[in-house]
Amino acid sequence: MDVLKEIMLRAKMVDVSLLKFLEVGKYDKLRQAVRHYPEAGGKRLRPVMAMTVAEAVGRRGQDAIPFGCALELIHNFSLVHDDVMDEDAMRRGRPAVHVLFDVPTAIIAGDALFALAFRVLARTPVDGERLRRLLESLSDTVYLVAEGQQMDIDFESRDDVTVEEYMEMVEKKTAVLFACAAEGGAIIGGGTEDQIQDMYEYARLAGIGFQIWDDVLGLIADEKVLGKPVGSDIRNGKRTLIAVHALEGLGAKGQKKHAAALKAFGNEKATDAQVKKVIALFQEQGSIQYGKDIALDYARRAKEKLSCLPESRERELLSEVVDFSVGRES
Amino acid sequence: MDVLKEIMLRAKMVDVSLLKFLEVGKYDKLRQAVRHYPEAGGKRLRPVMAMTVAEAVGRRGQDAIPFGCALELIHNFSLVHDDVMDEDAMRRGRPAVHVLFDVPTAIIAGDALFALAFRVLARTPVDGERLRRLLESLSDTVYLVAEGQQMDIDFESRDDVTVEEYMEMVEKKTAVLFACAAEGGAIIGGGTEDQIQDMYEYARLAGIGFQIWDDVLGLIADEKVLGKPVGSDIRNGKRTLIAVHALEGLGAKGQKKHAAALKAFGNEKATDAQVKKVIALFQEQGSIQYGKDIALDYARRAKEKLSCLPESRERELLSEVVDFSVGRES
Repeated sequence: MDVLKEIMLRAKMVDVSLLKFLEVGKYDKLRQAVRHYPEAGGKRLRPVMAMTVAEAVGRRGQDAIPFGCALELIHNFSLVHDDVMDEDAMRRGRPAVHVLFDVPTAIIAGDALFALAFRVLARTPVDGERLRRLLESLSDTVYLVAEGQQMDIDFESRDDVTVEEYMEMVEKKTAVLFACAAEGGAIIGGGTEDQIQDMYEYARLAGIGFQIWDDVLGLIADEKVLGKPVGSDIRNGKRTLIAVHALEGLGAKGQKKHAAALKAFGNEKATDAQVKKVIALFQEQGSIQYGKDIALDYARRAKEKLSCLPESRERELLSEVVDFSVGRES
Repeated sequence: MDVLKEIMLRAKMVDVSLLKFLEVGKYDKLRQAVRHYPEAGGKRLRPVMAMTVAEAVGRRGQDAIPFGCALELIHNFSLVHDDVMDEDAMRRGRPAVHVLFDVPTAIIAGDALFALAFRVLARTPVDGERLRRLLESLSDTVYLVAEGQQMDIDFESRDDVTVEEYMEMVEKKTAVLFACAAEGGAIIGGGTEDQIQDMYEYARLAGIGFQIWDDVLGLIADEKVLGKPVGSDIRNGKRTLIAVHALEGLGAKGQKKHAAALKAFGNEKATDAQVKKVIALFQEQGSIQYGKDIALDYARRAKEKLSCLPESRERELLSEVVDFSVGRES
């Protein structure tokens, strides 16, 4: 199966609806700010996940499009606010909203995307009680995402983040929105209670696996594949699982001993040679292998959860999406 | 009827539920940031409005408490983000969230309050289809509030704001959330379609009236009554209806002629004497009387809409709330 083709097929259907849902509002400047990120594209992975799960439990994927678009709008709202907080100037090859306009406009545009997400949610073609459940799930999820963002920001100024804390942050910041997508797809598709729960778990585990594998690739992949310079996570001092594992393993004593090498960690001006020394240190600590093992284990556990579904092309796709995202080294 | 006593009676019931709804989240710092404004009190006017309307159309006011709390959380979320954007350091006698913590935490706390509002909405004791309608109304409303905030911010740097634009801004930034409260109260209370629409209109008109009267009081009231220095709107160059009317009436030519007096408008260091000259100019232009007339007219039209309700104590309260808020000069 051509995984990318299957994803793109659904993503195109999502795009048509998403752009229609964005035809909203009377005040032009805000409208432009609101549309800026969603219009710039993206893989629409969350809507595609919701559609594919709805199909896998036996209904038309289209029924999950409004819900999927709500997730995509939530995802975009969090990108707009993240970019303000991280002072990132670029996103998807375009200037960030707060750069193109200003910080207040970006804050408001994020809020407006948030509001729009819930407006679109209300268009889901399910009965009112299932809508209530989707509303509960989506609002709970967004609260967790906020917790994850807060943890991520707070970690930047800490040298003692534990692996356990890191795992909680990744689960909240990234995985729960995927989990909500898959769970919602199962609810909309009329899945059984077991399927609904297993789909949540499938996407939660896969989401954590994706993120950790991303951290691994940030250290071992080619720049061309990565789309950003290798070592940028090192120069930014990003608390990835690998960094957290290495620093935790070294302890205060080990960190002192390797202070010379670690100076490049969080130093934006570090040379390539200095960055390589940090990566070598992480390698020595077994942290890169540790990251790989953990990511692959999450991927394996995610795929196990798919056994609640009848055999189908869609189930296969949900399995291959995991393999496609976790495990490749280039 | 003692209007304040009636409001407080309901506000206390709201407070009990609101604090319970805020018992959420595992991450302490975010939890504290989220609770900071709602815990500091406030008149809970939006929930009280929803409760009173639910009672007036014939149901228990308590049924409207979760929906009312959702509105209160939305109101608080917008205050948190507003204070970040306006760089206001204080709110309700306490440091603003972004001062007590930092800007990123305040942005995230606002987002979390937003998410929580929709979580609380899902607890409304109505059938799923009425919940869908409340969800549509609340999410549409929050989008309009965002538009109003954006307009308000953009107006600060413009000298050519029209009365028409000002009215649109006030309607969106302030009135629609009250309108949503009253409409939702009527939906939850099982009101007729006519009652639902008239209650929306009642609160929309009253909300615009409140805000304009507030602008009037900012120029004519005693400092003690106002709780802020008279003339602060002048020193901040705030585009109130009165200022907009005066500037529009003067035109570019008149503004040039009165440039000396107008220098105090938007000058934080203006003396009391300079501020008085601006107020006198607004008076000369008939702008203060204009503001009074408009506010009273909105109040009158709001009260007319109450005729769709059967006679009751609650209907009387809804009428007296308007008189209490629009018309007093001290």
